[in-house]
Amino acid sequence: MKKCVGVVDTTFARVNMGKIAVEVLEKYLPGYKIIRHTVPGVKDLPGAAKRILDSGCEGVITLGWIGLREADKLSYLAASVGLIFVELLTGKLVIDVTVHEDEAPDDPEKLKKIAIDRVEKHAKNLAILVKEGPRALVDKAGQGLRQGYPDVGPL
Amino acid sequence: MKKCVGVVDTTFARVNMGKIAVEVLEKYLPGYKIIRHTVPGVKDLPGAAKRILDSGCEGVITLGWIGLREADKLSYLAASVGLIFVELLTGKLVIDVTVHEDEAPDDPEKLKKIAIDRVEKHAKNLAILVKEGPRALVDKAGQGLRQGYPDVGPL
Amino acid sequence: MKKCVGVVDTTFARVNMGKIAVEVLEKYLPGYKIIRHTVPGVKDLPGAAKRILDSGCEGVITLGWIGLREADKLSYLAASVGLIFVELLTGKLVIDVTVHEDEAPDDPEKLKKIAIDRVEKHAKNLAILVKEGPRALVDKAGQGLRQGYPDVGPL
Amino acid sequence: MKKCVGVVDTTFARVNMGKIAVEVLEKYLPGYKIIRHTVPGVKDLPGAAKRILDSGCEGVITLGWIGLREADKLSYLAASVGLIFVELLTGKLVIDVTVHEDEAPDDPEKLKKIAIDRVEKHAKNLAILVKEGPRALVDKAGQGLRQGYPDVGPL
Amino acid sequence: MKKCVGVVDTTFARVNMGKIAVEVLEKYLPGYKIIRHTVPGVKDLPGAAKRILDSGCEGVITLGWIGLREADKLSYLAASVGLIFVELLTGKLVIDVTVHEDEAPDDPEKLKKIAIDRVEKHAKNLAILVKEGPRALVDKAGQGLRQGYPDVGPL
Repeated sequence: MKKCVGVVDTTFARVNMGKIAVEVLEKYLPGYKIIRHTVPGVKDLPGAAKRILDSGCEGVITLGWIGLREADKLSYLAASVGLIFVELLTGKLVIDVTVHEDEAPDDPEKLKKIAIDRVEKHAKNLAILVKEGPRALVDKAGQGLRQGYPDVGPL
Repeated sequence: MKKCVGVVDTTFARVNMGKIAVEVLEKYLPGYKIIRHTVPGVKDLPGAAKRILDSGCEGVITLGWIGLREADKLSYLAASVGLIFVELLTGKLVIDVTVHEDEAPDDPEKLKKIAIDRVEKHAKNLAILVKEGPRALVDKAGQGLRQGYPDVGPL
Repeated sequence: MKKCVGVVDTTFARVNMGKIAVEVLEKYLPGYKIIRHTVPGVKDLPGAAKRILDSGCEGVITLGWIGLREADKLSYLAASVGLIFVELLTGKLVIDVTVHEDEAPDDPEKLKKIAIDRVEKHAKNLAILVKEGPRALVDKAGQGLRQGYPDVGPL
Repeated sequence: MKKCVGVVDTTFARVNMGKIAVEVLEKYLPGYKIIRHTVPGVKDLPGAAKRILDSGCEGVITLGWIGLREADKLSYLAASVGLIFVELLTGKLVIDVTVHEDEAPDDPEKLKKIAIDRVEKHAKNLAILVKEGPRALVDKAGQGLRQGYPDVGPL
Repeated sequence: MKKCVGVVDTTFARVNMGKIAVEVLEKYLPGYKIIRHTVPGVKDLPGAAKRILDSGCEGVITLGWIGLREADKLSYLAASVGLIFVELLTGKLVIDVTVHEDEAPDDPEKLKKIAIDRVEKHAKNLAILVKEGPRALVDKAGQGLRQGYPDVGPL
């Protein structure tokens, strides 16, 4: 089987995050097939991620969008726990990306920029970790890297 | 065995959400048997969902109703974690739908409309994913779809 | 072995909830042995429930009492997650009942009435589900049933 | 092998809770070996408890100390979930005891008294449950027992 | 195979915590190989920790950095639950260290000092527990040890 990685995004999101991730992964993982699933919302991400990894892929990036209600924050928490367990159960890489509407509640353009930057940087993170292994980011440890915002640097 | 999907709802809910889900699933999944269980409240949904999936069904939709107390929000969180693990343990689809009384605390008619719309759209999501597979919603990724409310569209 | 169901309550509670549950279950499940365990507090309920189910019983009702401190709410959440996993791990019924002191912080008589009503109704729920199976409550779906309070009815 | 129970406490605590528990357990479980581990903080308790139970002991008491920061409350929640799963995974008794600094934020003497009383009573609970089995506390169900404070009694 | 322990840190952190941990572990565990992985953020720590332990190491120290947003606190909680389960699933030691920006929101120098002190002390804790076993810290139980701050002592 051809090597593969997965992308899971949602219909709830207001930016086509999956499309961005696919483009980055195609660029940085040229030999890989990219499997893309789309689910309704953030709580559906862990199940889809696990199905992709169980089918043989080496890693997956999940792309969630979190609304402003208290229930959305709780959904974020539940999904985060679930995605961590996908990693524990499969032993494989899950890069869990979320955009929160409260990061720019009144500024859709800013929120869109956050989403695009965050997906691009984290898709690249997944590609690097898949291709180069778990020591690939050691040189950037403690550097205050941010996704969705400019890096803040080390103290 | 005939192919099947499941519906689980509660006696706590103030709208017969299971009945709506069954009607939608019968329409969109004509060859399927619909198994319906009703439980007391939201924390009983994961156990029932797992029993239906363990009996051989391909997917399940769970329909919770969340009250106004702090304890209800915590129950929502616990149930959400549980439902995600049902998906991880079975490898099958769980569409987890909840209506929160704080979405329209003083307007029962509005709450009822939210519930009906949300169940209809998510039951259709389950049918589509079961029938067409995990790529069926890719065209709608990032489109700001909402259940219970009008879609908000992409940014 | 004789068929059985379980009851677990706590020494923390201020109402003898287990006694009430045993009486209801004896009435509605005449052929069944009732196994009763008592534990110190709410976080001890999942372990005891699982031990009873692992010994062969068909279902269990757990009876928690939640104090007014923030830590009590977190204990409630942890116990709720645990009890859901007891259901997922055993495939059996767990009816998880809790009384929260903030439901009537200054009115012990009201709190006692809430506890009694809630245990009676939920013990009956367990008996019905054990005896008649998972479709027994479908006729009551969406009816706004409440335990501890009068039913609120459908919208 | 000699029968055994375990005690796990922390270096974070400001009272030597493990020492108290050992003394109570030696008194009430004269035939038992007491295995004591000490870990840095509350989140390390579940792993240590499981190691002791996996080594063959019948039960364990864990003794946590919770600081005043929001992060401490979240650590409490995570540890509580973990300890419940130790019970679900091993099938054995875990008595999870914690002292919260917000119980007496400005009164160290009171906090110390709470800690001592709570450990003594819960260590005795563990001894009773180990020696006499899961029905040993049924007579005290619903009696409003408290650990760290005087009992509040039944309603 | 040479004995080993692991270090996992993040690119999100603003202090090179992994480097500090490696230096301490090399000093106190001279015969051990130190495996270091770096991941993007706190939610990636459990997966990496488990991979290192599954490869044969005896213990691991994870080094998280928690931002100021509400979502960061929820990520902290999810990661904490995940790391506890790494310990339960592997039976091995996980020392879970986090620095929270709200510990010194307006004082980067103080935050840096907290991070350095906390990593040094906890890396030493890991070394001691690996080398001397689970009774090595019993003499320090209840001593009010703090990492990142001066010890507060027993009451």
